[in-house]
Amino acid sequence: MYVAECPSRGVLDHVTSRWGVLILVALAEEMHRFSALRRKIGGVSEKMLAQTLATLEEDGFVERTAYPEVPPRVEYRLTPLGREVAQQVEALVDWIEGNVPNVLRARAKNKKADR
Amino acid sequence: MYVAECPSRGVLDHVTSRWGVLILVALAEEMHRFSALRRKIGGVSEKMLAQTLATLEEDGFVERTAYPEVPPRVEYRLTPLGREVAQQVEALVDWIEGNVPNVLRARAKNKKADR
Repeated sequence: MYVAECPSRGVLDHVTSRWGVLILVALAEEMHRFSALRRKIGGVSEKMLAQTLATLEEDGFVERTAYPEVPPRVEYRLTPLGREVAQQVEALVDWIEGNVPNVLRARAKNKKADR
Repeated sequence: MYVAECPSRGVLDHVTSRWGVLILVALAEEMHRFSALRRKIGGVSEKMLAQTLATLEEDGFVERTAYPEVPPRVEYRLTPLGREVAQQVEALVDWIEGNVPNVLRARAKNKKADR
């Protein structure tokens, strides 16, 4: 991963992108339709959601199923590989969510020290 | 984390940025001088390295120590909080490095299916 040309860097970018993380965590809970994902993930645009889902699908993490219904129903779920990577991402997200107060405290302390 | 305004998103951005990840993983191995970090992390510019280190320091993950020597010696190491988050990031990086072949295989398969 230290080597600039390593393909692992591309995979890292996909799974740790802002929307990549949140999509993986949401799909780890359960499969979602596009519209449900969009409502759940605050701030994501339709375009960015579609783009990130396509990238995660290409990498083999997400499976897209379109049902021939009217109106069309499209569902997204994790593949077995996606479930594995989502577990790692979730552990990181859980740690961060549990430690936001510690980070805010550190920031306040560093600000004081600057004065 | 689903909420756009949650401060956890900022912390996530810092630790999962391309250079944030690699700095945390490198410093988890041992403390580094600035020049050693720059040599180790392929493709990072001096500016991006300094900027990312400053952000990680502000968040309380990295400690910077400057020794009054000629030439000046500046060392970076993880704080206890930084060691914790680095563990999570390392687990994710290890998983990715071990699964690059699976992702490349999925990409090749998806490309074939597109034809």
